[in-house]
Amino acid sequence: REVVQSTKEAMLALQRRNPSIQPLLAIIQAGEDDSLLEINKKIAGTIGLNITQICLAKECSEDEIVEEVLKLNEDPRVHGVYLHLPPASLTSRVLNTLKPEKDVDGISDLNMGRLVRGDLSKGFVPPIANAVLDLLEKHDTSLEGKTVLLVGGEGSLGVALQCLIERRGMVVFKSHWSSKSLQRQVMQADALVLLGAGTIDVPPSWVRPGAAVIRCQPSLETGIMFSKSGLGYLTAAYRTQNVVHNCSRWFQEQQYRPWHLRSLKLQPLTPVPSDIEISRAQTPKPVDQLAAEIGVLPEELEAYGRSKAKVQLSLLDRLHTQPDGKYVLVAGITPTPLGEGKSTVTIGLVQALSAHLKLNSFACLRQPSQGPTFGVKGGAAGGGYAQVIPMEEFNLHLTGDIHAITAANNLVAAAIDARMLHEATQSDKALFNRLVPSVNGVRRFSPIQISRLNRLGINKTDPASLTPQEVSTFVRLDLDPSKITWQRVVDTNDRFLRKITVGQASTEKGMIRETGFDIAVASEIMAILALADSLEDMKNRLARMVVGTSRSGQPITAEDLGVSGALAVLMKDAIKPTMMQTLEGTPVFVHAGPFANIAHGNSSVLADKLALKLVGRNGFVVTEAGFGADIGMEKFFNIKCRASGLRPNVVVLVATVRALKMHGGGPNVSAGAPLPREYIDENLSLVAGGCRSNLRKQIQIAHLFGVPVVVALNVPTIEVKLFNLLSVAFINLYCIFSKSNFLDSVPLTGALMCFHLSVSPSFPQMPIVEKIRTIAQKVYGADDIELSPEAEAKIDYYNQQGYGSLPICMAKTHLSLSHMPDKKGAPTGFTLPIRDVRASIGAGFIFPLVGTMSTMPGLPTRPCFYDIDLDPVTEEITGLF
Amino acid sequence: REVVQSTKEAMLALQRRNPSIQPLLAIIQAGEDDSLLEINKKIAGTIGLNITQICLAKECSEDEIVEEVLKLNEDPRVHGVYLHLPPASLTSRVLNTLKPEKDVDGISDLNMGRLVRGDLSKGFVPPIANAVLDLLEKHDTSLEGKTVLLVGGEGSLGVALQCLIERRGMVVFKSHWSSKSLQRQVMQADALVLLGAGTIDVPPSWVRPGAAVIRCQPSLETGIMFSKSGLGYLTAAYRTQNVVHNCSRWFQEQQYRPWHLRSLKLQPLTPVPSDIEISRAQTPKPVDQLAAEIGVLPEELEAYGRSKAKVQLSLLDRLHTQPDGKYVLVAGITPTPLGEGKSTVTIGLVQALSAHLKLNSFACLRQPSQGPTFGVKGGAAGGGYAQVIPMEEFNLHLTGDIHAITAANNLVAAAIDARMLHEATQSDKALFNRLVPSVNGVRRFSPIQISRLNRLGINKTDPASLTPQEVSTFVRLDLDPSKITWQRVVDTNDRFLRKITVGQASTEKGMIRETGFDIAVASEIMAILALADSLEDMKNRLARMVVGTSRSGQPITAEDLGVSGALAVLMKDAIKPTMMQTLEGTPVFVHAGPFANIAHGNSSVLADKLALKLVGRNGFVVTEAGFGADIGMEKFFNIKCRASGLRPNVVVLVATVRALKMHGGGPNVSAGAPLPREYIDENLSLVAGGCRSNLRKQIQIAHLFGVPVVVALNVPTIEVKLFNLLSVAFINLYCIFSKSNFLDSVPLTGALMCFHLSVSPSFPQMPIVEKIRTIAQKVYGADDIELSPEAEAKIDYYNQQGYGSLPICMAKTHLSLSHMPDKKGAPTGFTLPIRDVRASIGAGFIFPLVGTMSTMPGLPTRPCFYDIDLDPVTEEITGLF
Repeated sequence: REVVQSTKEAMLALQRRNPSIQPLLAIIQAGEDDSLLEINKKIAGTIGLNITQICLAKECSEDEIVEEVLKLNEDPRVHGVYLHLPPASLTSRVLNTLKPEKDVDGISDLNMGRLVRGDLSKGFVPPIANAVLDLLEKHDTSLEGKTVLLVGGEGSLGVALQCLIERRGMVVFKSHWSSKSLQRQVMQADALVLLGAGTIDVPPSWVRPGAAVIRCQPSLETGIMFSKSGLGYLTAAYRTQNVVHNCSRWFQEQQYRPWHLRSLKLQPLTPVPSDIEISRAQTPKPVDQLAAEIGVLPEELEAYGRSKAKVQLSLLDRLHTQPDGKYVLVAGITPTPLGEGKSTVTIGLVQALSAHLKLNSFACLRQPSQGPTFGVKGGAAGGGYAQVIPMEEFNLHLTGDIHAITAANNLVAAAIDARMLHEATQSDKALFNRLVPSVNGVRRFSPIQISRLNRLGINKTDPASLTPQEVSTFVRLDLDPSKITWQRVVDTNDRFLRKITVGQASTEKGMIRETGFDIAVASEIMAILALADSLEDMKNRLARMVVGTSRSGQPITAEDLGVSGALAVLMKDAIKPTMMQTLEGTPVFVHAGPFANIAHGNSSVLADKLALKLVGRNGFVVTEAGFGADIGMEKFFNIKCRASGLRPNVVVLVATVRALKMHGGGPNVSAGAPLPREYIDENLSLVAGGCRSNLRKQIQIAHLFGVPVVVALNVPTIEVKLFNLLSVAFINLYCIFSKSNFLDSVPLTGALMCFHLSVSPSFPQMPIVEKIRTIAQKVYGADDIELSPEAEAKIDYYNQQGYGSLPICMAKTHLSLSHMPDKKGAPTGFTLPIRDVRASIGAGFIFPLVGTMSTMPGLPTRPCFYDIDLDPVTEEITGLF
Repeated sequence: REVVQSTKEAMLALQRRNPSIQPLLAIIQAGEDDSLLEINKKIAGTIGLNITQICLAKECSEDEIVEEVLKLNEDPRVHGVYLHLPPASLTSRVLNTLKPEKDVDGISDLNMGRLVRGDLSKGFVPPIANAVLDLLEKHDTSLEGKTVLLVGGEGSLGVALQCLIERRGMVVFKSHWSSKSLQRQVMQADALVLLGAGTIDVPPSWVRPGAAVIRCQPSLETGIMFSKSGLGYLTAAYRTQNVVHNCSRWFQEQQYRPWHLRSLKLQPLTPVPSDIEISRAQTPKPVDQLAAEIGVLPEELEAYGRSKAKVQLSLLDRLHTQPDGKYVLVAGITPTPLGEGKSTVTIGLVQALSAHLKLNSFACLRQPSQGPTFGVKGGAAGGGYAQVIPMEEFNLHLTGDIHAITAANNLVAAAIDARMLHEATQSDKALFNRLVPSVNGVRRFSPIQISRLNRLGINKTDPASLTPQEVSTFVRLDLDPSKITWQRVVDTNDRFLRKITVGQASTEKGMIRETGFDIAVASEIMAILALADSLEDMKNRLARMVVGTSRSGQPITAEDLGVSGALAVLMKDAIKPTMMQTLEGTPVFVHAGPFANIAHGNSSVLADKLALKLVGRNGFVVTEAGFGADIGMEKFFNIKCRASGLRPNVVVLVATVRALKMHGGGPNVSAGAPLPREYIDENLSLVAGGCRSNLRKQIQIAHLFGVPVVVALNVPTIEVKLFNLLSVAFINLYCIFSKSNFLDSVPLTGALMCFHLSVSPSFPQMPIVEKIRTIAQKVYGADDIELSPEAEAKIDYYNQQGYGSLPICMAKTHLSLSHMPDKKGAPTGFTLPIRDVRASIGAGFIFPLVGTMSTMPGLPTRPCFYDIDLDPVTEEITGLF
């Protein structure tokens, strides 16, 4: 059989390309196997096609069938469903419950419509129709132009057959079995196709000599009939062919391809309206549509309303054989306090790449903290015509990741204080009885307790076998209240929580202590979310988090508190990146937003990894690092890349004329105050000064990591007249101009495509102090570092605890390359003071403190919430930026 | 024209039923109106059908057409789309972008397939096919059994016509225009249908005398051709008919109907596995499928992952003419500390009603706080085979409502402290300059500031016109730090935050004060969420919240702080109820979960209202009140019903044998400790004692509100042997037994259906003290109340502030009808002490404190988080209940 042979070859070809693919045909049948089913199984066996049979009772109800069909619809392993059921069971509801893309028999209304209109790129030709066609075509003499009589073709199979036969150039006549002129018609026909044959037939004497006669009886009882004529075999062969074709079509769709992205049109207005007005004027695509356009499967998507969705990590497994796209890091020169628009450049860039140059590309952004949204400044949704939409969703709860971090962080805090209280008020024995209670007479350690025992060197699993000393060691974390480093968090700018005293209610028995709240994004759990590369990795990092030190100097972890499993449960959805879209309908991941000083200030490893797979070989992923390149980019390489194993192909360094002027010697710029004259006039010499100092230095830093640099000058419309400053930008770099407006990002993308290098920064194994000194000298340009006694003691302690190999995450001001915010340009001749050193063991870095970092912002006298309002009728938000 | 006439009548009938319905046909056209379009517009005008035209350029691209089609797909006002475009523009992509339910021309693949299979209940017959059919049928002589020759019918319209004509009993032959035998075939035919006529035609001499000839040219250029034959008019008439029929079909679907609910099968196991195992063994229906089954439109649903969705409040407008379903309140007798399973009865009841008796029904539950999930006990997802699934979603973040409340609550708190700091450190002038800044030389009050001015009696809108005294009054809230009633919240059991001192960092300049955190569900914002009946109502209540008192004794509101608009923005999604499902796939709303002591302990008004519309006339909404009936039910009537205007038809009072025995004199029951003997043996006299005391009293309380009562005895399987206690339950009530297992709820539902009363409890206008006394005497059975001096002073203050008309929300223990938790049964002869009185002005109630209420739970020595874990591979959660 040719069909069997060609299907077999298609199957082998498919499995050569991906050995893990197993095409599967599911059969729903009522009652036992009949001969027809046996034929199907035999042919599937020959081809190597797997079959799963769902055997319902002979008298099964419509509901039962629908339930099974729904299960098969959702089962990603099934590539075709064969409803081997009595015709009466194939009701409208059953037929149209079956997903058309699994309807390999082509009997659903949608597939029938496709066939009638002649669009076979998506649907399926009913196998039986293909079999009939095949027999007609293989007839001794060509039937082209000849007449084919279709008897009994009143149903949709008849219509399908007629369409297909006519398209092969034959003339079709139809007749009822009951027609009085049947004999005459039969005698005239060059070929006969008898539908519903079996109980009724045409006398051989009527048939013109040499005419083809094909009998089809698609009902169940007459399987024998089929096998006689060979039609049954042929039909089964075409069915398996449909399944295998469907599977390879499905596989093909998973492969790299340029996206068919429907980009949203922009209608730029002059003057440019406020960001929220621009955002609101655009209707985002439904997020499931966007997902389909870029090849995310429906089962990998978890919608959160219409415009946000989480993408499941299983996508990484599915696409693991795909090559990654190009990886672009957007960093900046040392910014003014107003910010220099890195997010805007990031988004403008992907809009240009995706919507204009039709190159698959993804932006990966950090999720902004909600606190500042109501304080002094907005989030990082970009601006103008380069934004993430809807911007209010971006800036408010999003999909709840920061709320999950808050819940997890504060559960640890509550566990710490409660544990200290319980230890202070109970004997070893009472603690042990409560921690390892007898349930139905049996005492057992929980897995998390066994981990602690192992860490304590007590290799026992039977609670009864512990010595009193071991019981005491086990039950007492013996936390030193003055050495608890874990703070509570809240996603609100609440300065009065910076330093507080807790435990003052009488129920806490006088166990008061001083502590404080940070803003939620400062939680170590946020840094972990950003660095984890799988659920398991996140869970392990959460368990390793050190919350304080025991009185004997041992680090106490979240796992010691017994809380790490619960933390993983609280964070199980947060680990999935959230997908949104730009103003032009191109995809964006928003995921994680660790502080850029006490943590590493980069969006998540997982979002970048998912995006790199989704854009594929020729695509681009543009990710952003916080603050200036001395901080954000340095940490990107030394911390994020170390965790992810990824290397960027190029760094885009964002500068503004304003910041360049500041570094060239311009006066101070501060938020709220009007810009000094120097920033409004042309003043080329200031610009040149900035290029020669800070910009040049930041480029050199990127070159330390062996990565090519493209400089993007983010030029607000009002500065366009300064374009001639190009003549003075004589430094040796690619200098490309872009505006907040996407249109001008197109040249930038041209420059990007020159770089296909792959670099591999080395992570030297140095002692902690050397690592700090290297960053201070090579990156910041300091002469040396100076450690406070406290810092030295901490470093000794961390070395002793085995943390010496962790990377360094400097907590330094972003307003200068040095530790002095008012030293602009590229300062030299300074010694970097290291005030203290801390560690985020779960996240996996040591953070030296250079100066004081505020981890809890405050509210100004007139916070921006004064202007934020919701129209209760239109539900429109006003006053948000 | 008959068609026009009948369509006109259908239109009038539809508008009589609902005058607001305006059927609308949208036309997408390329270029100017042609004669064909004019015909369509004329006929639509005759019928009164609205038309909207989208005129694209003659040479428009596929993308442009698709974009317009997508917009019309999403526009709920459009009931039909007519693609009046050149045939080349009707690509597969265009045709299949159009929603089949708006494809009134029947040209999409799905509608074509429906027509071919003969299922016309959902699709549309192409108007032109109907027109041809009509002309054939209206022919002078009947054509039944006669031959019709279809010339040029190769496309899908030809197939459709052939199917339809054959179904009317005619015999169809087809021919190409180029066929050599065309003349012979024409001469034999009784009727001719010429497709693509216009450029080509059949010579009249070929046509048999008396034969019908119908020429159709569905392309645009030959509109005149149409108008000549009348076919153009007829086609247009059928198109309008399709639109009007579609509109009434749509309207019909919105009407009350018994749901076609696909219930999920249970496979009960013995012994009954843990709750989470039962939950995990069941695969929930996709939530969008459940929504479709119960008549929620796709545009009213906002999915949060696969198994949760928010339902938009616009549904209330759409269904406002529908009658409400029956309203059932589940309350309980005074519980033991173990709880008596009200949620389980609630869910068992709706599972029985919906999945077994096929009656539309909805359960409305409170969202549990996440804090206790990791402490000592689980949420309120029901239990055993009567649960909400997936239970881990129910008990964890859900759709983030509590997180939104936390954010909103803490923004108020941060605003309070920051404001006090700013007022303390700035002059009136500096404050004024910052609060009403000059933007581009113009000073303006924000709307929220104008509201404050009005409340202060300063009726000015020009900032410059305020006197220095008015400026001072306006800028200084002058909050008395000792009279701030607003607490911060966190959704964690964190006892060390019960009493704290804030502001101890040097940046806060010594402005320390004592305050505390409550658990998030104790926030007044939660009570507001539960009581609001619209977005506007919620916003107004948020603005009215009193956070403290000024030094001069004036109440200070959230609006005074300028924060109320931002609160509404933070809460804009939380106001939409979250839909989930029971273990049997029936719908559940989970929405709001205010504390049952300091607040009213009932789920949201909005969820109940939405559910009552969705179940419709003959359906049931089962909602649950917290704690015993003396608290939860009393507040349901006096607070929730007052806010909603709804009245329940019946109260289901849940009791357990265990609780009855306790009230009958059994020993103490406490969580964690083993049950005393009395609760394991039969002990009928204890049961009878409980019936005579607490149960009887709780029934009397329900009767106070004039509502019939059904008692549901929630009997765990192990107690079934006690069933004969029925013989001693001699009190005068309906006593029905139900088990945790749904199966036995069926008889309970039988009893419910006896009640169709509608009661209207009166809300007497009494002074605050009288209201408190009435509740104490009538509900609790106290002799009198005793007010502390503090309580008296507060009542005076509230009266003076005009809060005297607010209802009372008693903060009393739920473990006894009295204020003494160990007094079981129905205590008498006691005086209820009122220790203090507080107010939630935004939520709208006064709450007298009877004893001390803890608003922040703690963690035990071994919190349940020790057992909670996540398998990083299967993502299964273990240890959660």
